[in-house]
Amino acid sequence: MGDAARETGTAFLPKFDERGLIVAIVQDADNGEVLMVGYMNAETLHETMESGHVVFWSRSRNQRWKKGETSGHVLRLREIYTDCDQDALVVKATCDAGVCHVGFRSCFYRKLDADSRDTLQFTAEKAYDPEQVYGKK
Amino acid sequence: MGDAARETGTAFLPKFDERGLIVAIVQDADNGEVLMVGYMNAETLHETMESGHVVFWSRSRNQRWKKGETSGHVLRLREIYTDCDQDALVVKATCDAGVCHVGFRSCFYRKLDADSRDTLQFTAEKAYDPEQVYGKK
Repeated sequence: MGDAARETGTAFLPKFDERGLIVAIVQDADNGEVLMVGYMNAETLHETMESGHVVFWSRSRNQRWKKGETSGHVLRLREIYTDCDQDALVVKATCDAGVCHVGFRSCFYRKLDADSRDTLQFTAEKAYDPEQVYGKK
Repeated sequence: MGDAARETGTAFLPKFDERGLIVAIVQDADNGEVLMVGYMNAETLHETMESGHVVFWSRSRNQRWKKGETSGHVLRLREIYTDCDQDALVVKATCDAGVCHVGFRSCFYRKLDADSRDTLQFTAEKAYDPEQVYGKK
């Protein structure tokens, strides 16, 4: 299938990369905050659509990864958007507590300092205690 | 540098993948809309921070890609956020017209139909005429 069909058509033709993955940006369906970024293969994208819970493919563990399976903080699917060449997804979802395993609502809890470009500033407060969810390390 | 330092520290230690790239999600700095997804290498990330304009690395053309260099619709950098393991960036930026080369403000102008899972619905109107910017194809 050519790029033009991907760009202009109404057929959902997700384009997986050489690893068989597509990047999935999870955005809070209510307030638009970017919560996390993950990757899906064809199977976990299908499972996400069928189950209504967001399921990724873990690149580090090389296995299916249902977000929130351990913590209980599942991501409930609201909508899926795709971009012009269908090689990226925006997944709009809701989550009761936090998405980030460190305890923040969003994984993007630090921003680059405008003056010192090698320093990060924390921009959020923790939304939950990860030790209560995952246990002490 | 270990993962723990990436997760909890305030040092900006972006983690590039095996291709030397990091994914960069461009979010409208004013309304939170996800506009596009691109990739940066160390050089174009540095150029983005120094110049205040968003610069990517094009995977298809294998070269530096200053967004808007042809169209004039540059992305003006507002802030950069990174995630817990510092292998993804959220780049908050502003753009006068549209980001998508097809003519939409955001590349994510189609969403998956909730009933028919292989069909996309257009969710936006075109923001500019790409033929006036790029010429007729």
